[in-house]
Amino acid sequence: MSGLLTSLESAPQPMSELRCDPLLNRWVLIAPARGSRPNDFAAGSRVEQSAPLCPFCEGNEHLTGPEQLARRAEQTSPNGPGWTIRVIPNRYPAVTSEDEFSLFGETSANTTTGWGRHEVIVETPRHLPLSTTHSPDHWNEILQVFQERLRDFRRIPGLQHAFVFKNHGPAAGASFIHPHCQIIALPRVPNAVADEIQAGDLWWRQTGHCPRCELVAAEIQDASRLVTASSEIVAFCPHASRFPYETWLLPRRHSSDFASAPPEVLNDLSSRLPAILVRLEQVIPGVSYNLVLHTAPLHAPALPGFHWRLEILPRLTGMAGFEWGSGWFINQVAPERAAQVLRPRD
Amino acid sequence: MSGLLTSLESAPQPMSELRCDPLLNRWVLIAPARGSRPNDFAAGSRVEQSAPLCPFCEGNEHLTGPEQLARRAEQTSPNGPGWTIRVIPNRYPAVTSEDEFSLFGETSANTTTGWGRHEVIVETPRHLPLSTTHSPDHWNEILQVFQERLRDFRRIPGLQHAFVFKNHGPAAGASFIHPHCQIIALPRVPNAVADEIQAGDLWWRQTGHCPRCELVAAEIQDASRLVTASSEIVAFCPHASRFPYETWLLPRRHSSDFASAPPEVLNDLSSRLPAILVRLEQVIPGVSYNLVLHTAPLHAPALPGFHWRLEILPRLTGMAGFEWGSGWFINQVAPERAAQVLRPRD
Repeated sequence: MSGLLTSLESAPQPMSELRCDPLLNRWVLIAPARGSRPNDFAAGSRVEQSAPLCPFCEGNEHLTGPEQLARRAEQTSPNGPGWTIRVIPNRYPAVTSEDEFSLFGETSANTTTGWGRHEVIVETPRHLPLSTTHSPDHWNEILQVFQERLRDFRRIPGLQHAFVFKNHGPAAGASFIHPHCQIIALPRVPNAVADEIQAGDLWWRQTGHCPRCELVAAEIQDASRLVTASSEIVAFCPHASRFPYETWLLPRRHSSDFASAPPEVLNDLSSRLPAILVRLEQVIPGVSYNLVLHTAPLHAPALPGFHWRLEILPRLTGMAGFEWGSGWFINQVAPERAAQVLRPRD
Repeated sequence: MSGLLTSLESAPQPMSELRCDPLLNRWVLIAPARGSRPNDFAAGSRVEQSAPLCPFCEGNEHLTGPEQLARRAEQTSPNGPGWTIRVIPNRYPAVTSEDEFSLFGETSANTTTGWGRHEVIVETPRHLPLSTTHSPDHWNEILQVFQERLRDFRRIPGLQHAFVFKNHGPAAGASFIHPHCQIIALPRVPNAVADEIQAGDLWWRQTGHCPRCELVAAEIQDASRLVTASSEIVAFCPHASRFPYETWLLPRRHSSDFASAPPEVLNDLSSRLPAILVRLEQVIPGVSYNLVLHTAPLHAPALPGFHWRLEILPRLTGMAGFEWGSGWFINQVAPERAAQVLRPRD
């Protein structure tokens, strides 16, 4: 499908635009550069073997833009082999990533330049099949890279908010098999984030509690939607899950900023996350899912009413006409049932 | 995939629940009954031949629930052959459709019964392949059935809002090939609808104009995103299109209520809609899309700031991690380019 989209784009525009429907307060990145990206899944079959031309494989570093950050062995050079995790610019970016923040500005009513950063976090030098999951130790390294990159973005003038996410499998929007996450940083805090912060702040001012701290306590108490819990991390299928087997992981102690999560929290998160992903793959072989990190804006102070979380969103069903019209979701698996299925076996 | 979801549902719950995340004001229908629906597309291949067990085919009326409305030849009986359009209950409903509105009520904090109506509008007695499009005359009949059913729902106590939509093709969430639309009626006006009405009302009170009437005039004037226009209907790719080739059809004269659109508007809509769908199929063979009708709540008075519209939402790309986190969309085809491609050839 992406080839087809490309062929229609006879004169691709170089720049992304950020457009808004002012009545609906709905925002869109018009990103012609993404039309030309290749797609491992385009043929509809799952290619699991090593790919000599995969730009994410070790030895193919010359196929990517310059690395922005890497975990690599001593005495190895940037943009060559010897790394375990590598952060590179996305070659088909959703945002225009020229250096100059001055590029960001209104070009007409309800249109600004779609400026920002769009990077790929290559999780491993190996072309692993989708069904594999990294070890807790390797996930720990990946989570640390997320933190480091979020802190780096604080120092780039103009960036206000960053999303770290993973599209796993074709139904989740992935176009490459080689395991990778992405990070998109924007010069504006999206309204969905601002609304959640505002609602949480209101709750906190009215009750003296963070609403998600209350939720964590209630889910542990109730236990019917609980998947797993440690001293630092809790995982549950939320009461109003949008997707079958949707699972949220939150720190038990209040924190709005993932980038400042201490080692003991990363340790617990990196041990619990792969266990849930392995269980999900056992239950639904070949499952596609999105991982989405919800954390505070880059320059926000500590927020007493906002609590960071990592969401696992399995993609077994899609949005359809009803969902686009109503903004509501239809989920055919009750979260209580989902939690029962995902809970670790004895 | 749906078979797999079914097998996990060892003890399906009979009732749908409507659940809310109160912090995000996000609503979900937990609908276990939908887990057991069959799927023509499950094998991944497109089955285009006639299906002896298709419940939507003429002659198979005994496979469906009782018809709620039909266009049928004189001297034929309900629930038998002889019809051209037939409205039946959805066998795998998103909402619990027991007769009693008293079923709708709070069952716990942030949970109510998911009561309402979920029906299928079978567009034709024939098992037509997805690539076919009805004639303008037949679309006219289908649009009249939409109107009639919306008016019928006004007389069912407790129903407040109805969505008419079409899921065309597997990427748009369709599970049956036989051409059909759906209608879901709810005892609550979803917040997305209420928000749009409120924003339009504010605009109208501030400016004395309907914002979409202003938009229609501006798009006709500008013409860069215009697909087609008649004396009654205008079609354009909106400035902040969420999807490649997204197209909106609106009446040129202000109206908030599709159910009361006069014959000349239906005539123009039913001539323009199939022409765009045919062009879309030419440009992207096998394209999946959603049609979504946005109209006023069932019991709303004439709304000066709300303007009904029919949206065509081609589904070439999906929601992925960034979209779930930000609430923003990424669209790789600029609407100006999309309109150029969709515009009728000379």
